[in-house]
Amino acid sequence: MCGASCPAHSRGDRVSVDTTTAGAGPKGPDGGASGGLPVSPSAGVLRPLGLAEVRIVGGFWGRRQHVNGSATIVHIEHWLEREGWLGNFDAAADGRLPGARRGREFADSEVYKLLEAMAWEIGRTGDEVVQGRYDAIVARVAAAQEPDGYLHTNFGRPGQDPRYSDLEWGHELYCFGHLIQAAVARLRTRGDHLLVQVARRVADQVCEVFGPGGIESVCGHAEVEPALVEFARATGERRYLEQARLFVERRGHHVLDDIEFGRAYFQDDVPVREADVLRGHAVRAMYFAEGAVDVATETGDEGLRDAVRRQFITTLARRTYLTGGMGSRHQDEGFGEDFALPPDRAYSETCAAVGSVQLAWRLLLSDADPTWADVIERALFNVVATSPAPDGRSFYYANTLHQRELASVPEPDVVSTRASSSLRAPWFTVSCCPTNVARTFAGLGAYLATADDHGLQLHQYAPARIRTRLADGREVAVDVDTDYPHRGTVRIRAAGRERQRWDLTLRIPAWVQGGAVISGGTRQDVAPGLARLPVDLEPGAELVLDLPVIPRFVWPDPRIDAVRGCVAVQRGPEVFCLESVDLPGGADVSRFQVDPGTPPTERDGRVWVRGVLGTPTDVAWPYRSEPAGTGDPVAVEVPLTAYHDWANRGPSTMRVWLPCDSGSV
Amino acid sequence: MCGASCPAHSRGDRVSVDTTTAGAGPKGPDGGASGGLPVSPSAGVLRPLGLAEVRIVGGFWGRRQHVNGSATIVHIEHWLEREGWLGNFDAAADGRLPGARRGREFADSEVYKLLEAMAWEIGRTGDEVVQGRYDAIVARVAAAQEPDGYLHTNFGRPGQDPRYSDLEWGHELYCFGHLIQAAVARLRTRGDHLLVQVARRVADQVCEVFGPGGIESVCGHAEVEPALVEFARATGERRYLEQARLFVERRGHHVLDDIEFGRAYFQDDVPVREADVLRGHAVRAMYFAEGAVDVATETGDEGLRDAVRRQFITTLARRTYLTGGMGSRHQDEGFGEDFALPPDRAYSETCAAVGSVQLAWRLLLSDADPTWADVIERALFNVVATSPAPDGRSFYYANTLHQRELASVPEPDVVSTRASSSLRAPWFTVSCCPTNVARTFAGLGAYLATADDHGLQLHQYAPARIRTRLADGREVAVDVDTDYPHRGTVRIRAAGRERQRWDLTLRIPAWVQGGAVISGGTRQDVAPGLARLPVDLEPGAELVLDLPVIPRFVWPDPRIDAVRGCVAVQRGPEVFCLESVDLPGGADVSRFQVDPGTPPTERDGRVWVRGVLGTPTDVAWPYRSEPAGTGDPVAVEVPLTAYHDWANRGPSTMRVWLPCDSGSV
Repeated sequence: MCGASCPAHSRGDRVSVDTTTAGAGPKGPDGGASGGLPVSPSAGVLRPLGLAEVRIVGGFWGRRQHVNGSATIVHIEHWLEREGWLGNFDAAADGRLPGARRGREFADSEVYKLLEAMAWEIGRTGDEVVQGRYDAIVARVAAAQEPDGYLHTNFGRPGQDPRYSDLEWGHELYCFGHLIQAAVARLRTRGDHLLVQVARRVADQVCEVFGPGGIESVCGHAEVEPALVEFARATGERRYLEQARLFVERRGHHVLDDIEFGRAYFQDDVPVREADVLRGHAVRAMYFAEGAVDVATETGDEGLRDAVRRQFITTLARRTYLTGGMGSRHQDEGFGEDFALPPDRAYSETCAAVGSVQLAWRLLLSDADPTWADVIERALFNVVATSPAPDGRSFYYANTLHQRELASVPEPDVVSTRASSSLRAPWFTVSCCPTNVARTFAGLGAYLATADDHGLQLHQYAPARIRTRLADGREVAVDVDTDYPHRGTVRIRAAGRERQRWDLTLRIPAWVQGGAVISGGTRQDVAPGLARLPVDLEPGAELVLDLPVIPRFVWPDPRIDAVRGCVAVQRGPEVFCLESVDLPGGADVSRFQVDPGTPPTERDGRVWVRGVLGTPTDVAWPYRSEPAGTGDPVAVEVPLTAYHDWANRGPSTMRVWLPCDSGSV
Repeated sequence: MCGASCPAHSRGDRVSVDTTTAGAGPKGPDGGASGGLPVSPSAGVLRPLGLAEVRIVGGFWGRRQHVNGSATIVHIEHWLEREGWLGNFDAAADGRLPGARRGREFADSEVYKLLEAMAWEIGRTGDEVVQGRYDAIVARVAAAQEPDGYLHTNFGRPGQDPRYSDLEWGHELYCFGHLIQAAVARLRTRGDHLLVQVARRVADQVCEVFGPGGIESVCGHAEVEPALVEFARATGERRYLEQARLFVERRGHHVLDDIEFGRAYFQDDVPVREADVLRGHAVRAMYFAEGAVDVATETGDEGLRDAVRRQFITTLARRTYLTGGMGSRHQDEGFGEDFALPPDRAYSETCAAVGSVQLAWRLLLSDADPTWADVIERALFNVVATSPAPDGRSFYYANTLHQRELASVPEPDVVSTRASSSLRAPWFTVSCCPTNVARTFAGLGAYLATADDHGLQLHQYAPARIRTRLADGREVAVDVDTDYPHRGTVRIRAAGRERQRWDLTLRIPAWVQGGAVISGGTRQDVAPGLARLPVDLEPGAELVLDLPVIPRFVWPDPRIDAVRGCVAVQRGPEVFCLESVDLPGGADVSRFQVDPGTPPTERDGRVWVRGVLGTPTDVAWPYRSEPAGTGDPVAVEVPLTAYHDWANRGPSTMRVWLPCDSGSV
């Protein structure tokens, strides 16, 4: 496997230009035609593949990519226009600020995340209509840039707060980060553009103001850190990396003011190398960790990378929901203490899951540990896929694991002020999640597979067309055909004109029992982790990966107090839930208790569990001198719903964790 | 029993002046010498007794009253001065606002709550030194009043927001409410005063601005509603009652703007008569409910009173912690949904418990239902008494039932910005709780007993000296001697010069099993509820109430998901908890599992439970395919601490709800 010694991934005094930046820098093994890489480290065990190298061609994720491209991106444009967040840039150019400004202080960032999503979508599809709309938006953004490069619609003009006067809450560098990420996406798909020039001037201004001798602080919301490293990778400008390094090292030294939630809220409580676990605002924590890993990768700082890896491992062991969701506090959108994971108050912000995917992907490229692909799979299926409605035009911001009361139905044409308590809403006062879903789905193909000197690694299973070349020129060309996760059969077929001779490494998810690879009539058992197989396939020949997708109970660690005495149901990577709409008479889910002694079954395309429906007795005081039983239990068998599909049939009460019938435990 | 037909409690077109308002209005049966009544309805089944009629003379509450008078009130004065919240009034008088203003928009209210506490303290003790300090503060407040009666240091001056421009968050009427309550306390203890004149002009201004034809809205934080009714009672001015009625009827009709937390936050979601349960911000909900009951009582509106009573009953059945604490959400300091009562995120604000005491007291006076006295006992022992440290100089704002991590130790000289996560703090940015504790403790004697035409009712048990007269002139003079709740023996001794011949009604708490009254050598069993006994005692003779105070397990309703599989321990009215400082080696409380089959015992003055101490195994992912057992369980017996005494030995992890050892269930 390649690593620091691999010429394609070497480190030098100057950051190497990423080889997949279209129209910028030297061509790499893929001839710069990767089609775009969401993350492009200059070192690491695995080499990421771009959007032209891995195309999703259908299935669970293909449907979502299609809806994203055909509906969600337009939907976002509509709302950005309608709410005036795009208009803020026009107002800036026309000198109508601050009077004409609309939206929150970070509204600019949603425009940038839309541009990033559009760039990946253009890279994926080559859609010139989208390109035209993209150009028009970029022109409006560019017109708002000030002569010195600064570009923010909420600060610095007469009548506005001065630039950088509120680093705790102002989100200036956060917005710049998303602008820069959008420019990186453009550089890696179609190459240079007005947006890239705008981003360069913004990044230069940041380096000037926050570099050595400048403001020795950081932004309350991390994001500029990974963006600057990626921009350094995409442009070859080392000073962007150096500025990111400064930001990463500064945070944690109490450079920001203390606030009600404590400095942990913006990870300014403890220096990154000394922290034990991710904490504070979950999205901030994720984005910052991404930036730290990126800095570590580009500077060869293994201590820094290992610190973040250790923190993420602890976070997964103690602060993560069954769905992969992170953040158990509404108050500060933040992590709770270890094992404080209430299902009913799960915040589990969609953006935090996007961040966990991005962080896990960076670690996967770095060390090839299949754990990270498990993390990505879990978060994608159970949080990111849960957020958008099937039509891609409304979203969950928070992703609760227990809905106690029927949610309100949002007006289709009204901005939601709430992160929770309603069904999926078309837009939010703080609308970070829809744009985050859009940019993730548009670039999703890139998270499926990687290569190294020896062959191909498949991390996620979806119908896909994979075409790349190894460093030595060998063609890798396979088509993946599967109905995963509905079924666990994955067919991998040699698709090129050449004979496929290389090593195939398959991630076997941690939940798999009884998995196997069938090749040339031979069945070989595979266990969770990595299965590495020498491949030697004539064009058209195939091998089959069989991952038995059977519903099963899952028990929580006894330290997770909030779900003591409960079980959940998973089927493959998907978490299931009970909705009241599936109970007799629409009974509230609180009345159901599951029989954990009877495993869940599958019938008529649904997953079923057995248990009892009780009728609790109303009491004046709910604390008694003896345990209360289930009132009038009636035996029932009830169907469950894949969690990502919940609330698609109108308001329901819902729970992922099912209390065990005490009579049957 | 007296009621609407009782001359002492009659209603008329004009609200009757309360008979215990010193120096104002006609003398009632107690000759105006009650010494002060915190609440004085003009109708109701029970007649409250004032601070001169019921004096606490020691014991659990006597110690706290002493600390409150000797330390807490001075402590509050110190911090109000130091933080400039008192100085705001000087700055207003000197024309130095808004520049010189300090503290939050509701800082004025803390000065008023201090004045209320001082008034009760003066009424209780006659302390002329306190009276002098009181006069000095009132003079500073009065100097800030504007010519038209308006008095708020945060609004209306050039450079400040205009008066009443932010009813959702401005807290103007809230502050006025506390000013008026302070004036009521003064009227009912020593009579007219400069403060009363100030409050009259404020109340008149409120009636003018918010009366018919004025602003048809309410304050985002209820408080002026009960204050205006009480002021009407204390002054005889019916228009104050009418204004309160308008405020009560208006709320719930969406007169305030919608906010992120929804209009339920300030009870503006549903009209008071139509609501099913208390909801939204818990303190706001309580104060509003008090005001509604007060309006209902003074206008004879039984439908309104019954609506609130029904809401409170449902709130107790579904939205109240074992401690009596209310509010399970940090985000909005609010109630969660039914049975959403996480112990670790219990907000259980001290002020909400004060509000629940005030609401329950109003309902008790109205209908004599002993449930309300149970509510008061529970909240006083387990929330209000938990807030202050033994020295009365630091406080809990939120009262969690489960401390997962060691709390930070607040600097003794620094204002805490946090409502939770530290030990008791001396002062807060939002410092409503210390002043609420102070006014409650100063007036606590009045909550112990009531009278009616037939005799005396004892609701709370504390060493006390009770002296009053019934409507027909019969003397009621008893001394109560008890070490309650440490011991359950309550001695009630005839103390006057006359033979005591009247009916004694004793509240038998709901937790009592095996209670009895011993009188004249006869033991008579009593059950939870009311025990009504004809008393015929020569001076010096006594009867004894025996309430067996034995530690016992308590099981939660199965719908309270967050404590499924757990038990708690109570002893009499006191809730107990486990602190890590009492575990071998200071082990974290998460490692203990209780044996629910072995009842708790008492030894060496402490309560003990048996169980096991486990050593959980660290796992990479805390959701598994089979239940996890207790790691290496070691049998232990551990002592518990009365919850109100927790964290008095430094930082500890703590839990009220103890997970049951699955091996022993």
